[in-house]
Amino acid sequence: MFKNKQVLLAERPKGLPIASTWKFQEVEVPELKEGEILIKQEFISLDPAMRGWMNDSKSYIPPVAVGEVMRCGTVGEVVKANQHATFKVGDFLTGWGGVQQYTTTDGKGYRKVDPKLAPLPLYLGTLGMPGMTAYFGILNVGELKEGDIVLVSGAAGAVGSLVGQIAKIKGCTVIGIAGGPEKCAYIVNELGFDGAIDYKNENIYSGLKKHCPDGIDVFFDNVGGELLNAALTKLRMNARIVICGAISQYNATQKVEGPSNYLSLLVNRATMKGMVVFDFADRYMEAAQQLSVWLKEGKLKSKEDVYEGIENFHSTFLRLFSGEKLGKLILKIAE
Amino acid sequence: MFKNKQVLLAERPKGLPIASTWKFQEVEVPELKEGEILIKQEFISLDPAMRGWMNDSKSYIPPVAVGEVMRCGTVGEVVKANQHATFKVGDFLTGWGGVQQYTTTDGKGYRKVDPKLAPLPLYLGTLGMPGMTAYFGILNVGELKEGDIVLVSGAAGAVGSLVGQIAKIKGCTVIGIAGGPEKCAYIVNELGFDGAIDYKNENIYSGLKKHCPDGIDVFFDNVGGELLNAALTKLRMNARIVICGAISQYNATQKVEGPSNYLSLLVNRATMKGMVVFDFADRYMEAAQQLSVWLKEGKLKSKEDVYEGIENFHSTFLRLFSGEKLGKLILKIAE
Repeated sequence: MFKNKQVLLAERPKGLPIASTWKFQEVEVPELKEGEILIKQEFISLDPAMRGWMNDSKSYIPPVAVGEVMRCGTVGEVVKANQHATFKVGDFLTGWGGVQQYTTTDGKGYRKVDPKLAPLPLYLGTLGMPGMTAYFGILNVGELKEGDIVLVSGAAGAVGSLVGQIAKIKGCTVIGIAGGPEKCAYIVNELGFDGAIDYKNENIYSGLKKHCPDGIDVFFDNVGGELLNAALTKLRMNARIVICGAISQYNATQKVEGPSNYLSLLVNRATMKGMVVFDFADRYMEAAQQLSVWLKEGKLKSKEDVYEGIENFHSTFLRLFSGEKLGKLILKIAE
Repeated sequence: MFKNKQVLLAERPKGLPIASTWKFQEVEVPELKEGEILIKQEFISLDPAMRGWMNDSKSYIPPVAVGEVMRCGTVGEVVKANQHATFKVGDFLTGWGGVQQYTTTDGKGYRKVDPKLAPLPLYLGTLGMPGMTAYFGILNVGELKEGDIVLVSGAAGAVGSLVGQIAKIKGCTVIGIAGGPEKCAYIVNELGFDGAIDYKNENIYSGLKKHCPDGIDVFFDNVGGELLNAALTKLRMNARIVICGAISQYNATQKVEGPSNYLSLLVNRATMKGMVVFDFADRYMEAAQQLSVWLKEGKLKSKEDVYEGIENFHSTFLRLFSGEKLGKLILKIAE
């Protein structure tokens, strides 16, 4: 018998999740039905998008139901299999296993990964959803061209740090917006960004004036709010804004702040476009292969910030919004 | 000697222009230099964009300088020519002649029109900038496809009324937003729109719910503000928003209201794109020819609202913002 610790959505939060948002429970794993596998999850992925899935509103996927195991990306090992067509005991799989130590599934939506080719957490970061998001977001949605001046918000985060590095590989000038001197030093010194704006200690408008004197061709936005509004004032002709997220607004208890400078889109014939990575699912392999090559060549650095213990899920999840993490936030849940 | 009544920008307005915004004067027309022509202007075009040109801010063209003749589109007849290479006395020309009865020019930016093919005011409306804006805005920027559900704001205006009619010609469902029952009846009964929302007498959200139950593929926005924000809640997958103008905001003395529902772009993988008609200058002839054909076939109706007297420029200009006009606003200035 396997004991399975799980985290369920207990109630829909208003604003930032609080302790009572979650229900922690331990259950026994039921016997597998024919065609099912049991995955022992090693690591789970903590992503800003999870906050959106907790709201009872129309979005690109249905919300997590109250009483349901919280949805999240996972990577783990198959420990039992009942006549499964594709997967066998010992396979390592990544998929949407949820915040729990064991997942029973028919295997749909899972794909095999090789722990010898890359450490498991990488499959939740650079070789997982954040990598796919960065790759297709900047190259396809952002229509990146060599020589572009690129601005990235959430630049020390899982997606933003990859967006900036990909843009550097493609011959662009890259400025990142991040919170605090440590993150700003990291993206410039470790990741090779051309400049960094510390939005926590620097006026964003003067930061843009200093670092983007010639304007911006592409703004890749993970943050929204005042950063988006400020970036709009620096658009070059035919600029593209990729709306990947708006972490500054996800816990807003009041009305989301709209970008009052949006008429800059008209003046500069610019485009603001939303993206959801799932639309590129049929091309994930292409991105994963290219990202692997860049990793191997040392052109791309991957940073995972790994915490431990499913009991610490709540406090670790909050690091997404407090900014107290560097790179991809991951929780090790295997005991 | 020709006496020339002119309207100059006397001071930059805060909010809505007032009487002292303008300086009316009468001057004598100087002798032509070699290569110049003198145009007696018959009609001038009054457009919302003119309000933007009065602000001292970076935009797609330089602002009108204080003390300068107010910029506007014109159509008139060449009454004198001093060895001009292209134009001769008796030619009718349209161009940017400004708010004045006579324009002295080297002819750059002017093009010949034929008063026998269409009444002169039409060259400031359907066959002029509004026509070009509607044509390229909905077909190129909006990437219109047969069967699209199209929403148009400012739907009884010069641009909006053409956008909706072009979309109908292309086999789309078209809903217009206009102010007041007269305009709403006009766009449905005269122009063949499928529905109208009277934003002055109807809640815009319930209007959208009623008239666009299946959402919107293209929103062509001339108005901005709350209408844009409401439309964002009804986007279909891969919807396109064309930002053509924001007449609700042009006279705002406070901060422009940003579209707080902009994250709908992300959820629906939608695009918001700004346009300026001048970018399509090399294709104006293509549009003018197609629009002429549609006019002749009776598929397109053109409505000009013509007032008289350069002395009435101020009060007539204000009709753009009060909504007290139907179709293209034009002032006859020839005496």
